Amino acid sequence: MLTLSKIAQTLPASPIRKLVPFAEQAKKRGVKVYHLNIGQPDIESPEVALKAVKDNTLNLVEYPNSAGNESYRKGLAKYYQNIGIDVDVADINITTGGSEALQIALTVTCNPDDEVIVMEPFYTNYNAFALISNVKFVPISTSIDNGFAIPSVEEFEKLITPKTKGIIICNPCNPTGVLYSKDEIEKLGEIARKHNLFIYSDEVYREFCYTEEPHYSCMHIKGLEQNVILIDSVSKRYSLCGVRIGAIVSKNKEVMNAVLRYAQARLCSPAYGQIAAEAALQAPESYFKYVKDEYISRRDYLVKELQAIPGVLCPTPMGAFYAAVRLPIDDSEKFAQWLLEEFSFENQTVMVAPMAGFYATPGKGKDEVRIAYVLKIEDLKGAINCLKEALKVYPGRTI
Amino acid sequence: MLTLSKIAQTLPASPIRKLVPFAEQAKKRGVKVYHLNIGQPDIESPEVALKAVKDNTLNLVEYPNSAGNESYRKGLAKYYQNIGIDVDVADINITTGGSEALQIALTVTCNPDDEVIVMEPFYTNYNAFALISNVKFVPISTSIDNGFAIPSVEEFEKLITPKTKGIIICNPCNPTGVLYSKDEIEKLGEIARKHNLFIYSDEVYREFCYTEEPHYSCMHIKGLEQNVILIDSVSKRYSLCGVRIGAIVSKNKEVMNAVLRYAQARLCSPAYGQIAAEAALQAPESYFKYVKDEYISRRDYLVKELQAIPGVLCPTPMGAFYAAVRLPIDDSEKFAQWLLEEFSFENQTVMVAPMAGFYATPGKGKDEVRIAYVLKIEDLKGAINCLKEALKVYPGRTI
Repeated sequence: MLTLSKIAQTLPASPIRKLVPFAEQAKKRGVKVYHLNIGQPDIESPEVALKAVKDNTLNLVEYPNSAGNESYRKGLAKYYQNIGIDVDVADINITTGGSEALQIALTVTCNPDDEVIVMEPFYTNYNAFALISNVKFVPISTSIDNGFAIPSVEEFEKLITPKTKGIIICNPCNPTGVLYSKDEIEKLGEIARKHNLFIYSDEVYREFCYTEEPHYSCMHIKGLEQNVILIDSVSKRYSLCGVRIGAIVSKNKEVMNAVLRYAQARLCSPAYGQIAAEAALQAPESYFKYVKDEYISRRDYLVKELQAIPGVLCPTPMGAFYAAVRLPIDDSEKFAQWLLEEFSFENQTVMVAPMAGFYATPGKGKDEVRIAYVLKIEDLKGAINCLKEALKVYPGRTI
Repeated sequence: MLTLSKIAQTLPASPIRKLVPFAEQAKKRGVKVYHLNIGQPDIESPEVALKAVKDNTLNLVEYPNSAGNESYRKGLAKYYQNIGIDVDVADINITTGGSEALQIALTVTCNPDDEVIVMEPFYTNYNAFALISNVKFVPISTSIDNGFAIPSVEEFEKLITPKTKGIIICNPCNPTGVLYSKDEIEKLGEIARKHNLFIYSDEVYREFCYTEEPHYSCMHIKGLEQNVILIDSVSKRYSLCGVRIGAIVSKNKEVMNAVLRYAQARLCSPAYGQIAAEAALQAPESYFKYVKDEYISRRDYLVKELQAIPGVLCPTPMGAFYAAVRLPIDDSEKFAQWLLEEFSFENQTVMVAPMAGFYATPGKGKDEVRIAYVLKIEDLKGAINCLKEALKVYPGRTI
């Protein structure tokens, strides 16, 4: 029968992408749309990475090694060592983006119906990877009311069953912008140690931390080397989303052997992307300083403006480039669509990501949106103005 | 528990890659190794594709569209139209290589334990994709004795059950080098039509056909548009293995909708690779003529030399760049390892792919190897000489 699989029938259309046709129609009507909906930074990729691709001398673009180019992995090992993560080449397998990294990590560790605990709200595409890997996501709720603080050990333990395989953590967190402290990460480590769980540590926003202390990785936890599988990517770190280069990093040899066998089956990660990513390791400190300063200014502007709007709650994000925001509205999906379909202010409008799709628990996040501060301040100004005006006239406003 | 998944425990190490450490040791001993074991062509990528990447003007490597760049898909639609495959942009989703294309196609169409019929010997990595997608491969045997001819309709029908979801065909075929005729493809189409099956048509070697008639694709079969899912790739067509660009093509809208949702979850295919692949569409006819002439010369030389060795059977391959060869030996895995570990002739040896790993039925292909004629004739000479000498002294020879 030409029927589709259950996975195909269940795979959600991304809650963000569902809005794309409405944005296109708005543009057709001549309305300018500010995109605060996706994590596509507007900041240029490092010159050294772009140049390496332009200057490449390949005459034949061969399959790179399935684990990744040796020279790139060596450079990446050094990068990790510099931030206190003690790994070498053998602990690293280059992947086709962080997406493939997480999908491979789940596939090699979880059997169908195994459970993985994930703090909600979480990056919506996790849902798809869980479906594809036949893994059951068990959400543990965090709330905007206390800044999405990590739940207590007891709350985690209530959810642990013999089927529990691990915990996913995204730090700094997409979509909340939360940066977990050393204490919080160590607490998570204790749970993993006690119950023998994997930690899938998604750290693709590692470079975007806005505190004085350095980022504390699950890979830093002493004695937990066999449990932690790091999911990484160059997409955000170097504004290289399109090169599709990520990595799985772990000291667990059994895991890495299985990862390599999976990696061999799909042959390799992109050759040009690896050239860009390897060169990006040479990006000067000034690049990161510029990027960080820029995001901090944007965040500060955004949070100040949002907090001044009546009925809006916006905890100050300390990492990544997202803010989770509670708005005085009935339903953020309706609101987001209305912004594109029916609203404009001075011929402009704004596209935001409704948060319901970031929660696994039905009904949660209905009055929240995620705002990606990936636009320069001038554009952020226009976007926030639209939002302010919209909240005055939106029919479903609650104040 | 930190145990791995069943998939991880079952994922086979590639039968070819298992030999890599022995090849490395041979090289360390100063022995030159001719690589006839993998389908990595030595022919340069088209200048126009390489140049497009070198001349690219991206300052920010953004996520391309999940379905693939519109301009590339338009060009690709024209490419298919030119070879009589009536598709447009909406029928094409760019993927990260042919590997991802097949994996997505299986995932969106098959439930766990659904069955897919595949002619053995087949491309070994199919095994991994089946495992990862929880699909059961049902092998139907073909034999070197009759040139790996496609089995009769009756043979296929014996294997069809209510669980059968489709048939995979690789045309021209890796590893056998067989090119299926229009009649054979139509026959397969009849089976699919009668039993309502998908055909997963892997045509990544489409450009490598050595007959006068043009390649006949499953996409050409009239009235079977809803059943056929084309798996394609630029890896072999343009010697661009490392760019990781392939495609899923189908007129079945339901399938393509599901493919798009899967594609959105993993975000996109590589940006630089798409630049190379789109430019490669402009490769001149002279490039393909040169490539084809080169492979025909190599094949003719290889087959003539092999057929002259006592006890060797080598049907003339009419497509792709592989020859399946029966050798007068006990066990091709042992032989392949012995070639690298213990044998050398004038300080040279040769690496071949044992065929057992290309069969699903245990015991099959034990005296067969796959030879990829991806080396220039001068090197092929050295390689065949080694093989000849080896067959004289190999302890497990059978004549």
